[in-house]
Amino acid sequence: MIFLKLFLCIKDEFFTILPYIAIAIIEPRSLHTLLQQPSNGFREERDTFGPIQVPADKLWGAQTQRSLQNFEIGGERERMPEPIIRAFGILKKCAAKVNMEYGLDPAIAKAIMQAAQEVADGMLNEHFPLVIWQTGSGTQSNMNANEVIANRAAEILGHKRGEKYVHPNDHVNRSQSSNDTFPTVMHIAAAMEINSRLLPNLKTLYATVHTKSIEFKDIVKIGRTHTQDATPLTLGQEFSGYSTQLAQGGTAVGTGLNTKRGFDAKIAQAIAEETRLPFVTAENKFEALAAHDAFVECSGALNTIATSLMKIANDIRFLGSGPRCGLGELVLPENEPGSSIMPGKVNPTQCEALTMVCAQVMGNHVAITIGGSNGHFELNVFKPMIASDLLHSVRLLGDASASFEKNCVKGIQANKERISKLLHESLMLVTSLNPKIGYDNAAALAKLAHKEGLTLKEAALKLAVLTSDEFDQLVVPEKMIGPSD
Amino acid sequence: MIFLKLFLCIKDEFFTILPYIAIAIIEPRSLHTLLQQPSNGFREERDTFGPIQVPADKLWGAQTQRSLQNFEIGGERERMPEPIIRAFGILKKCAAKVNMEYGLDPAIAKAIMQAAQEVADGMLNEHFPLVIWQTGSGTQSNMNANEVIANRAAEILGHKRGEKYVHPNDHVNRSQSSNDTFPTVMHIAAAMEINSRLLPNLKTLYATVHTKSIEFKDIVKIGRTHTQDATPLTLGQEFSGYSTQLAQGGTAVGTGLNTKRGFDAKIAQAIAEETRLPFVTAENKFEALAAHDAFVECSGALNTIATSLMKIANDIRFLGSGPRCGLGELVLPENEPGSSIMPGKVNPTQCEALTMVCAQVMGNHVAITIGGSNGHFELNVFKPMIASDLLHSVRLLGDASASFEKNCVKGIQANKERISKLLHESLMLVTSLNPKIGYDNAAALAKLAHKEGLTLKEAALKLAVLTSDEFDQLVVPEKMIGPSD
Amino acid sequence: MIFLKLFLCIKDEFFTILPYIAIAIIEPRSLHTLLQQPSNGFREERDTFGPIQVPADKLWGAQTQRSLQNFEIGGERERMPEPIIRAFGILKKCAAKVNMEYGLDPAIAKAIMQAAQEVADGMLNEHFPLVIWQTGSGTQSNMNANEVIANRAAEILGHKRGEKYVHPNDHVNRSQSSNDTFPTVMHIAAAMEINSRLLPNLKTLYATVHTKSIEFKDIVKIGRTHTQDATPLTLGQEFSGYSTQLAQGGTAVGTGLNTKRGFDAKIAQAIAEETRLPFVTAENKFEALAAHDAFVECSGALNTIATSLMKIANDIRFLGSGPRCGLGELVLPENEPGSSIMPGKVNPTQCEALTMVCAQVMGNHVAITIGGSNGHFELNVFKPMIASDLLHSVRLLGDASASFEKNCVKGIQANKERISKLLHESLMLVTSLNPKIGYDNAAALAKLAHKEGLTLKEAALKLAVLTSDEFDQLVVPEKMIGPSD
Amino acid sequence: MIFLKLFLCIKDEFFTILPYIAIAIIEPRSLHTLLQQPSNGFREERDTFGPIQVPADKLWGAQTQRSLQNFEIGGERERMPEPIIRAFGILKKCAAKVNMEYGLDPAIAKAIMQAAQEVADGMLNEHFPLVIWQTGSGTQSNMNANEVIANRAAEILGHKRGEKYVHPNDHVNRSQSSNDTFPTVMHIAAAMEINSRLLPNLKTLYATVHTKSIEFKDIVKIGRTHTQDATPLTLGQEFSGYSTQLAQGGTAVGTGLNTKRGFDAKIAQAIAEETRLPFVTAENKFEALAAHDAFVECSGALNTIATSLMKIANDIRFLGSGPRCGLGELVLPENEPGSSIMPGKVNPTQCEALTMVCAQVMGNHVAITIGGSNGHFELNVFKPMIASDLLHSVRLLGDASASFEKNCVKGIQANKERISKLLHESLMLVTSLNPKIGYDNAAALAKLAHKEGLTLKEAALKLAVLTSDEFDQLVVPEKMIGPSD
Repeated sequence: MIFLKLFLCIKDEFFTILPYIAIAIIEPRSLHTLLQQPSNGFREERDTFGPIQVPADKLWGAQTQRSLQNFEIGGERERMPEPIIRAFGILKKCAAKVNMEYGLDPAIAKAIMQAAQEVADGMLNEHFPLVIWQTGSGTQSNMNANEVIANRAAEILGHKRGEKYVHPNDHVNRSQSSNDTFPTVMHIAAAMEINSRLLPNLKTLYATVHTKSIEFKDIVKIGRTHTQDATPLTLGQEFSGYSTQLAQGGTAVGTGLNTKRGFDAKIAQAIAEETRLPFVTAENKFEALAAHDAFVECSGALNTIATSLMKIANDIRFLGSGPRCGLGELVLPENEPGSSIMPGKVNPTQCEALTMVCAQVMGNHVAITIGGSNGHFELNVFKPMIASDLLHSVRLLGDASASFEKNCVKGIQANKERISKLLHESLMLVTSLNPKIGYDNAAALAKLAHKEGLTLKEAALKLAVLTSDEFDQLVVPEKMIGPSD
Repeated sequence: MIFLKLFLCIKDEFFTILPYIAIAIIEPRSLHTLLQQPSNGFREERDTFGPIQVPADKLWGAQTQRSLQNFEIGGERERMPEPIIRAFGILKKCAAKVNMEYGLDPAIAKAIMQAAQEVADGMLNEHFPLVIWQTGSGTQSNMNANEVIANRAAEILGHKRGEKYVHPNDHVNRSQSSNDTFPTVMHIAAAMEINSRLLPNLKTLYATVHTKSIEFKDIVKIGRTHTQDATPLTLGQEFSGYSTQLAQGGTAVGTGLNTKRGFDAKIAQAIAEETRLPFVTAENKFEALAAHDAFVECSGALNTIATSLMKIANDIRFLGSGPRCGLGELVLPENEPGSSIMPGKVNPTQCEALTMVCAQVMGNHVAITIGGSNGHFELNVFKPMIASDLLHSVRLLGDASASFEKNCVKGIQANKERISKLLHESLMLVTSLNPKIGYDNAAALAKLAHKEGLTLKEAALKLAVLTSDEFDQLVVPEKMIGPSD
Repeated sequence: MIFLKLFLCIKDEFFTILPYIAIAIIEPRSLHTLLQQPSNGFREERDTFGPIQVPADKLWGAQTQRSLQNFEIGGERERMPEPIIRAFGILKKCAAKVNMEYGLDPAIAKAIMQAAQEVADGMLNEHFPLVIWQTGSGTQSNMNANEVIANRAAEILGHKRGEKYVHPNDHVNRSQSSNDTFPTVMHIAAAMEINSRLLPNLKTLYATVHTKSIEFKDIVKIGRTHTQDATPLTLGQEFSGYSTQLAQGGTAVGTGLNTKRGFDAKIAQAIAEETRLPFVTAENKFEALAAHDAFVECSGALNTIATSLMKIANDIRFLGSGPRCGLGELVLPENEPGSSIMPGKVNPTQCEALTMVCAQVMGNHVAITIGGSNGHFELNVFKPMIASDLLHSVRLLGDASASFEKNCVKGIQANKERISKLLHESLMLVTSLNPKIGYDNAAALAKLAHKEGLTLKEAALKLAVLTSDEFDQLVVPEKMIGPSD
Repeated sequence: MIFLKLFLCIKDEFFTILPYIAIAIIEPRSLHTLLQQPSNGFREERDTFGPIQVPADKLWGAQTQRSLQNFEIGGERERMPEPIIRAFGILKKCAAKVNMEYGLDPAIAKAIMQAAQEVADGMLNEHFPLVIWQTGSGTQSNMNANEVIANRAAEILGHKRGEKYVHPNDHVNRSQSSNDTFPTVMHIAAAMEINSRLLPNLKTLYATVHTKSIEFKDIVKIGRTHTQDATPLTLGQEFSGYSTQLAQGGTAVGTGLNTKRGFDAKIAQAIAEETRLPFVTAENKFEALAAHDAFVECSGALNTIATSLMKIANDIRFLGSGPRCGLGELVLPENEPGSSIMPGKVNPTQCEALTMVCAQVMGNHVAITIGGSNGHFELNVFKPMIASDLLHSVRLLGDASASFEKNCVKGIQANKERISKLLHESLMLVTSLNPKIGYDNAAALAKLAHKEGLTLKEAALKLAVLTSDEFDQLVVPEKMIGPSD
């Protein structure tokens, strides 16, 4: 086998290369297969359905194993998103802390807290193999967390996996309804991702766009309405439109996620301390389980941001089109070869990635809406999909905003020469002659220019309605960009 | 009455008016065709394209006529929505008022204000024949408003239509950018419809659901998670979940529409006075023309309300299913014959209408999102579609909420007998025996009951783990609906 | 003419008819109000719920009246679409014909057929006041049809309205399940609209685009990928891409609607003869009532057409952007003043209307998908919404295709001068020098041209890598538009 | 470091545990980070932008490395889907084969074919690190394939990575337009996944549902329309509705993907041979690059399947609701503990996973639609997102169908006792008395039964309209399931 050979020949440099061998051997997509053929065998775990074989080196228990076997949908990529796993760590840690106050054996409580912290730190991710497409309450992932933390806490206390010295239900899940926990981690994960990933990146993008709007404040350019030439504005004004969109979008999503969900007061306080986010307890727990309007609403805010970013990215790629046969007003940074031979062909690849992300966010929004509308009775059973799609949208928008900012907006330059050329060729400037020569003369002048391909000035002189000096005095695009005094 | 007078003066020409009687008799959808064959002929109107024939009895002018001929899309039903037309009336009235301060001839200004008021009152609706599917800036409808108001104002001042004594551009549209006006009326129309139609109806629905949650507060019933029997709650608690959803949705949409758009300060103040809604001027006019994020966001709030209402209506129809072979916990009011022979077959038609409305609102939201994301450069050209779909969603949600409240929720009765029967048959009550007889005994008891079709009590007695009295003391569903003391 | 007669007989009661003249004068949207205050009073109609007042001049009966009062949602515009009403006429006519064979009194059957024909001809539209947002099976509209046809047939036979000489259920609805009829008319209406409105207009648009692709076959122009300049193609090739899209879309929708639904064999044959469309009976009637996959699929085909048209309309507006500061390769027909002063500013309003229509069709598709996915048990109860949205999409796409063809595509002209200028300025032509001067020289040449703003030829001469003749011989864009021999 | 410690303590069991250590150390989500800190250093690769450091143990080259650094969006999970990578292997192998006929050095061609086969076999997946969110033409993934295959082919021929003995462009990408290749692999990947994963699983599901419809053909049960009791049908008829939906959906998607895209004839033939799928060359290459209507259409077919599966899964979970307080007509297989204490509580988790998948497919469809509608000029730049979402939907539907079939449908049992009980309690059976006792008596009888909670028979006897024998002879639900003779 090729992998084995590869390994042997590099054996001497053992410590250095280990991580890379690993990569060589277990290309992530085939992890799934490997997981089910563990080298060091299986151990038995039990639940109310009876015994079941679990890979010996994994911390999960019987219920996780059943879900793994019953839901072979989508493979590795569709595992419950990492922020959900980490949020389970936070919740279980806080729950153990509160349970300790209510009588849980402190030794066990502390071991649970330590194990849960490892989950929160992402150290035990490999023990969370379940996919999104499981029970619609997400309780199988809750059991996954309970089982992993119980086995890990038992190990910390010197006991073996599977012996239930620390019990997944009685200890780790204590005082938690199976149905409560998943909505809780949904909210923790969403709030944390939005605050740590999306909002900072949106703010940076906003700041850079705003900076550009100042940098470009004196560059007068042709406006375009209906994709047709219109009266002038400054490039700075154009960018200020974008920054306004970004500011509004950020505000909307910042207030969009209602963090008041699914917690008892004590737990809410513990989670608020742990995450430094203002979680409080839900006022109506029936609504909190049965519906996910806060997620639909938050997804609506992301959808709005996506429409903003789509518009901005589209504008930038059209304004940067060329180099010779497009609008060519902006020069986008060259990050990779657009064409191996042609300088100046800078494909707006960042705009492309961003607009694809926007389309995906809009699609995810529809999926979340459908999921949110299909709750029945006391429990909405589209929770994992809703959570996963929201986190997907948050992650994509956050990352793509950062990439767009760093690799595109920051490096945008105005092609002043081109901007000026287009501006002065435009026939729209004729409107400034109205007060002086009257509407009819102005229209005749523009018609002549259009018909014969002249500049406005050439046409004016040909028609002898103005002298060259008069024309220059009247036609000053810089004066057309705001209300006159 | 103006109509009467109009009629009397044409009495002598009796047969001339015949076609109009025909309109009275035939159906509204074919009005369009008839309108273009006016009995009393045409007059000539002019614009920069030259002369064009316009029906003599219509107030519109040349540009409206051109649009009418160039956009034969969708027919009568697709006319620009009435709230947009009325908002044009408000805007033009306010603009004339402000223009008067800035020097517009007071006689003309006042005539414009009077004509605009008639538009705002819906009295001139028939003179607004243009469809949504026109220029994407909506400026043809702006010209329609200018032309109608100009001709009507001229008439008020004793002049003839088409003579431009009051000029559509120079007088009515004075100081307004053609591109500014449509975003302005979009905001006026949306804000007014949301405030006058949607929010009041949502509030009434909320109040009725809330009342029901109090009325039903002592009715203990089986809960259902995963559509499976679960631990009990009260019917009041179930309805309190709905009222919480409604309250949140109402709040979201109440704050959802940013009313700070597209106005100059003076006009904004005048409109605020006229509409009693807090309109202020847009901070960034470039964004206000080029993007419609406020509408996308507002539509997102409507979309959230739609998911809430879909869930509520679905629950109610399932809880009301039967009369014999469904869940049958609710008795819905009987508004129409569900079956000509079978009493008790009450089709949940209000739920059906409401859920169809919700699906439409979700679809409109996607259309608005796509429109909002496709703005290019200085002007988004999906304005009429965005405005129309938002107003459509607002109207449908408002009307359907009112209909659902009046014809369904208000009359819902709890089928207490059925609720009680299901509750006491449920095996979920076994969980209350855990503390007394232990988990294993409780599970065995439930298994027996399930296998042999017994009640829990019968099974308990058969297994001799409890006396009849003990059972009755322990199994009290009423105690299971909240945390124990 | 029936209207004339109707009018003459009421001539003496002149003032009585006045309110109807008023209807003629005022606008259609307030008809609704008027309809409920009929001048000539009410008559009593009855159903199993008891008596109810109905406007005397209307043909509908008790059940229609109840629905009218119970579903005040959306107003006039939301009435069941006319094609549905007409399809009811066709179905009821065919049903009466078949029922006559099975023993229905021939006199009554023939009167029903005559009345139904009037419905099919759109002559009784005003008697169908029910909105889309009613019972989800559409059976209230079925009863509306039964009641109108029964009363009209009775009148034909010399009897009075409301007397049930011809009975809505026993005669008009005979042998029809209330739940069968609506799916049947959905299919009739959709098939007819697609065949009579959408497909012919799509074909005409295809033909015109195809004609343009031939007209433009020798115009070599710059290609654009990533919105950046790329190797040349002909304008004809570009348009051939559009025509291919249109041809595929037309084919998809042509086969998209499964017409094999919801009919018994006899009725199917009668309808097939009546409509000249190949209706046959559904193989599985359970699926036909409970699901509407054929509509979801058909809507998917319309959605694909919408993406095609969106792309085509976007391309055309960008290629026609200008007149001076855009791409300016196409000259779009001037249908209305784009700017009162500036010639050449031709707003691409037809593209705007068409792209708005496309966004609406995509939104309707989501609504239909949601409706289609929410069927429960033996009956999908989103039927009126599904039918209405599909017909809306069909109508909009059909009308907009016709408008776009007539008012835009047909008149498009190539701006050959501009196309040629851009083509020859492009640096992409440098790729044809590769074989002769080598990659490195070619790249250096292009870099020089880009840096100094030279043409390729100027750069070539400056670098002295080619003579002027050699350059002209090698750089022939016309040879770059296909694989070399 | 914890990982190091972990490693040391298990060092003795080195060979056994190595693969698992690897998993422990490099949880897939953090691979990305590790990839950029390779233990065995970097090598230099070059492109027209100059030199760049690449991990020495990776086969990719400079352009891949640039993309990796420029598009840090979404992380590991968002890598280009594996079917795309494998399709690149197939394409490049076929291209090398054809190129060999046209003069490519056979030694190099064969090495390319071998390396490409390794890619097609999924053996080199780890060398394809690029994410979906890259350039919208997907050409960076094409360069990734070119670079990996070139380096691997060079190694096969005994040369070093990075030396370009086999050149990514000149050899591997020979005769392929960068823009052509991605649409080609999109089609290969989609066609293969649909044929190998989706269709077989849909067929199996269809077959099982069909088998159930036969198994259940004699079980007469109450029908439900409007969620209300209606006339009877057999459970087999109900399932036959589902199987009809599945059959139609499978047919639609089977014909949905147009496989005639983006190939030259020779390559198309080679690919057809390689994949045994009927690929032929695209008729219009301009359309093939600029638009993706075939994908939008195919996604529309998947969307239709999703609506079907949503309806079926919803029905099954409602029919299986209970065990005591729901409809309870179906008994779903028990795959995992639904409740630790309550037997019979079988959560319909497979239905939940499937309906979540359906919502996701509907969302992906919207994303694909938006992507498909936003193509500009000669190239649609939403290709990777469109391809990825389509493959995502195909995979999810395929896997979820298999899981649903295996873990749910196959094991469904009819609860005959419950079905019979509900059926006989239903008041809808009264309709069979109409012919005998007349409508009025039948209605009175049903009203009495409803009011007093009697069975129909009890009511009949009480009213003395029928004898017990007469009742039994007349009320035979089995005779109500089809048209009478």
